[in-house]
Amino acid sequence: MTSNRQWLLKERPSGMVGPEHFSLQESALPEPDLDRGEVLIKTLYLGFDPAMRGWLIDEPSYLPPVQIGEVMRASSVGEVVSSSNPDLPPGTLIQGMAGWQEYSIAGPDSFIPPQPLPAGLTPAMALSVFGTTTLTAYFGLLDICEPQPGDTVLVSGAAGATGSAVAQIARIKGCRVIGIAGGAEKCAWLLDTCRLDAVIDYKSENIDQRLAELCPDGINVFFDNVGGDTLEAAITHMADFGRIALCGGISGYNDVEPAPGPRNLMILVQRRIKMQGFIVIDYMDRFEAAMGEIAEWVMAGEIAWREDIQHGFDNIPATFQRLFSGQNTGKQLLALAEPGA
Amino acid sequence: MTSNRQWLLKERPSGMVGPEHFSLQESALPEPDLDRGEVLIKTLYLGFDPAMRGWLIDEPSYLPPVQIGEVMRASSVGEVVSSSNPDLPPGTLIQGMAGWQEYSIAGPDSFIPPQPLPAGLTPAMALSVFGTTTLTAYFGLLDICEPQPGDTVLVSGAAGATGSAVAQIARIKGCRVIGIAGGAEKCAWLLDTCRLDAVIDYKSENIDQRLAELCPDGINVFFDNVGGDTLEAAITHMADFGRIALCGGISGYNDVEPAPGPRNLMILVQRRIKMQGFIVIDYMDRFEAAMGEIAEWVMAGEIAWREDIQHGFDNIPATFQRLFSGQNTGKQLLALAEPGA
Repeated sequence: MTSNRQWLLKERPSGMVGPEHFSLQESALPEPDLDRGEVLIKTLYLGFDPAMRGWLIDEPSYLPPVQIGEVMRASSVGEVVSSSNPDLPPGTLIQGMAGWQEYSIAGPDSFIPPQPLPAGLTPAMALSVFGTTTLTAYFGLLDICEPQPGDTVLVSGAAGATGSAVAQIARIKGCRVIGIAGGAEKCAWLLDTCRLDAVIDYKSENIDQRLAELCPDGINVFFDNVGGDTLEAAITHMADFGRIALCGGISGYNDVEPAPGPRNLMILVQRRIKMQGFIVIDYMDRFEAAMGEIAEWVMAGEIAWREDIQHGFDNIPATFQRLFSGQNTGKQLLALAEPGA
Repeated sequence: MTSNRQWLLKERPSGMVGPEHFSLQESALPEPDLDRGEVLIKTLYLGFDPAMRGWLIDEPSYLPPVQIGEVMRASSVGEVVSSSNPDLPPGTLIQGMAGWQEYSIAGPDSFIPPQPLPAGLTPAMALSVFGTTTLTAYFGLLDICEPQPGDTVLVSGAAGATGSAVAQIARIKGCRVIGIAGGAEKCAWLLDTCRLDAVIDYKSENIDQRLAELCPDGINVFFDNVGGDTLEAAITHMADFGRIALCGGISGYNDVEPAPGPRNLMILVQRRIKMQGFIVIDYMDRFEAAMGEIAEWVMAGEIAWREDIQHGFDNIPATFQRLFSGQNTGKQLLALAEPGA
């Protein structure tokens, strides 16, 4: 253990992001300032999220863009390997944003100070069902959409980490839930395990036609992870006073030229519809309370989730790409090492 | 006075609406059932609004579409000419929705029972500054956009009846107000009479470029009457947590094929923006209170308005078209007769 390997952003992608946009760098192991409470952390698991694609665009946004030559930003769980901080002894599991590298340093002055993993959580669980994707689902659905019992709730990207949590929280709240996902396997999981009321397989079915069949009285709530044609089809079938939470637009993240938006926005006027974007970090002061509620649902078996765990440092960039081809089944993770190994 | 003239919807327009879509019909004067409290009303003034274009489309909306062969729906002020109702003697001025015809009947069982004009209001004032366009401005701005003192508020269609009211209410609320309008004359009126902070003449200036200059810290509130490219440009310059009220989309009302929507909706996510459509009729139970506040502003000289009064029954369909060519300066009205004439 004398060197650190890192994936740096080599060039900004135009179109589909891939391994060619990152370069591997081997450098000296970073040295924590132990006297100032810094610790050296070995990365165990990395989390992948479609929103990371946005961090590669050189425009101001809710987080600064990743710069050329910088380590790619990513959520992580790691293990303390070097420390003189009595609160964070070696072996402590840490949640953070280590990025795509084997080792990182964090201390009390870091942007994200080192935060121990709650007892009983595996690294994979901390990054999946107990990660920010579920919090995103929680606040986007409950705060932006205010679902009422009996509402028809539509979720796009429903088999994804965020979408499947949205769908199940809506079900817990007494809504009728319809999910849109790609492929028979994902749709079967949503019906059988997540207990949705209906699913639409966008790879084999016409979304607009299926929504007409499934929602004769309209959609009260639409939680959108996809954008593009899916958003346009959903708008067509919204009920009066419907609410649309814009969480993401994965259909357009790798477009070279931005695609035209929905042609039917006047429906928002005619039917008095609210469409609102949100970012989960704005709810940080309520994370703890929300996580308590989410934990109760998970313990009660009310929220199912899946982890798609890839392996190996070399596979990091290719694993990121799985999100955009729809290959991932559940929360996309990558394991570099197991705790204590 | 033995016959009634009416403009009926002859065929549904595809593209620009014009006189050719309406047919003139002469029929017998309608006979009110005086024993049941009905009155015969002579139409004096008609009001014209871009939203009327939507009533010609054969799709369910917030009001049923006007059917082929029906009198074109329109707001009106008329005068009672035949009545045995002591509350509505001949000569009483009545607000209503008589539509494009010289005479109409209304009674206690009508969809809109006859409602006398408040004392002191001229027919033109009742349909312009004290009409639903100002109420639309009031609720759309204050309820949907919640403007705060110091906010930068952008209004499209700013020289129109609704837009100019929005701009001035925003100014009253302590906001910095920028209007978008077409032509030097309208822009000068907005600056000099309505006391806006800045204007953009979309006929001679690039909206996107001007917004970049005028709103370096972003737009907090956008009240949109226009849609299309104007909406896309405004989204580009929205500030974090901005609010967009969708009131209408006049740029697309006469499109044969719906134009593509804004390509930049992902900005709504990144900047946590709310975009919401509304219809003024949902606020009906608050009209009276709102009108009281509006009347105070008007009396105090804080809200300026303009009336564009055309004349003559034959000119009704051509007057409607003025809204879509931008020829109207202020609230579009048409006078058929004056009170007591």
